[in-house]
Amino acid sequence: MRNIKLTLQYDGTNFCGFERQNNGRSIRAEIEKALQKIFENPSKIIGTSRTDAGVHACCQIINFKTNKSIPIEKIPAALNSFLPEEIRIVKAEEKDIDYISRFAVKSKEYEYLIYNGQYLNPLFKRFVWHVRPKLDITAMKKAAKYLVGKHDFSSFCAANSDDKDKVRVVKQIVIRNTKCVIWEGCKLSVVSCKFVGPGFLYKMVRNMVGTLVEVGMGKRNYTDMKLILTEKDRKKAGRTAPAHGLCLTRIVE
Amino acid sequence: MRNIKLTLQYDGTNFCGFERQNNGRSIRAEIEKALQKIFENPSKIIGTSRTDAGVHACCQIINFKTNKSIPIEKIPAALNSFLPEEIRIVKAEEKDIDYISRFAVKSKEYEYLIYNGQYLNPLFKRFVWHVRPKLDITAMKKAAKYLVGKHDFSSFCAANSDDKDKVRVVKQIVIRNTKCVIWEGCKLSVVSCKFVGPGFLYKMVRNMVGTLVEVGMGKRNYTDMKLILTEKDRKKAGRTAPAHGLCLTRIVE
Repeated sequence: MRNIKLTLQYDGTNFCGFERQNNGRSIRAEIEKALQKIFENPSKIIGTSRTDAGVHACCQIINFKTNKSIPIEKIPAALNSFLPEEIRIVKAEEKDIDYISRFAVKSKEYEYLIYNGQYLNPLFKRFVWHVRPKLDITAMKKAAKYLVGKHDFSSFCAANSDDKDKVRVVKQIVIRNTKCVIWEGCKLSVVSCKFVGPGFLYKMVRNMVGTLVEVGMGKRNYTDMKLILTEKDRKKAGRTAPAHGLCLTRIVE
Repeated sequence: MRNIKLTLQYDGTNFCGFERQNNGRSIRAEIEKALQKIFENPSKIIGTSRTDAGVHACCQIINFKTNKSIPIEKIPAALNSFLPEEIRIVKAEEKDIDYISRFAVKSKEYEYLIYNGQYLNPLFKRFVWHVRPKLDITAMKKAAKYLVGKHDFSSFCAANSDDKDKVRVVKQIVIRNTKCVIWEGCKLSVVSCKFVGPGFLYKMVRNMVGTLVEVGMGKRNYTDMKLILTEKDRKKAGRTAPAHGLCLTRIVE
């Protein structure tokens, strides 16, 4: 039996998320369908991150088991030929039989982009949240400091989450002004919010971003963050930031 | 009578180009429809660049005339409210009555992106041409030198062009390795080809890119460029590069 690790990238715009749902195409279903075409009775895939509907990924990691002896270097192109162009397998690796991608993760990075100007260049609209009121980045940075560390993140976890233990560790949050660049003459100034940690609750990153933006808009004081955490009540935090600004950008094993 | 200059940006993916066609939505039709809603009997718009189906723009410039007295600073948001999200008016300026955008142009910049790797990150697929065979950038740079200057570009002009005079001046071509960046953790190494000149023939930039890529792939020698120009025959040059890698990035008046 072989245990194969795959690294994949996807544009999440037209998917209902990583996991199967009743309301659309999922990343899992597309990949399992492609695996079925190439491998005889492959196992179900194990994913590391259940990215939500509309969220993008530059480095999702999954693994599956098979008995079929296709050379490892031929697997990405073979699978890509059966996948929609919005999903690409970029790497395949042979792993020990007891490797489980979900448990191998030491750290994940999610990055969220906000455009804080008047008119959003349409070439970037799939990747950034357009927030018009002027954001106070300094206040957002101060608010983010309260979120770093080990906390009960109940206030930032979607109400319909399966997660029982709401304690998570946020290792780092970096908020900064930066630029997206497609063509040299086509740049966009954005606010980037990067979150690093071993794991996050369902919609936790987007709920943190939504709340940080309310601080940036002056709707909340940055010191409110401490109270929001203490209350352990989803209703105390801010809105969920839209999915399309978010990308799973790194997984460290 | 007021003469108003507008600067606009668009994602050309789902349009049949700037000019009206029988086979799809045009940028002109969308803008003239929006103008009609806000201004009483506005003139037709005059554009500076007839970008083709699928080509993007970061700085298209147009002008139109009207008698209606809407404050200039309110015009972009008013028009945007009637435009699809793929088109944004980013600036409106009052001009002298004899200003004609098409004739005010001193220089235009078009930039084309090529991804020369194995697996294309789907997040960039709307903006880059995926060329798999390894490109010899040095040979492409040498070939490009023959194109710079004043030449008859018949060999690079679409067969169905209305342009009678096929002589154009290419001021500069810059070919270089660079990176697209959306999120910090989501970058793509690309080959960028930038073309600067007062004006280009129909599909000329894409035909030059297609031919340069054939040089890069070793299908043609870089010295062939001189001969291709001399022959003044579209059949002598290479294929037309796909539209989606191209962006109108700058217009200097």
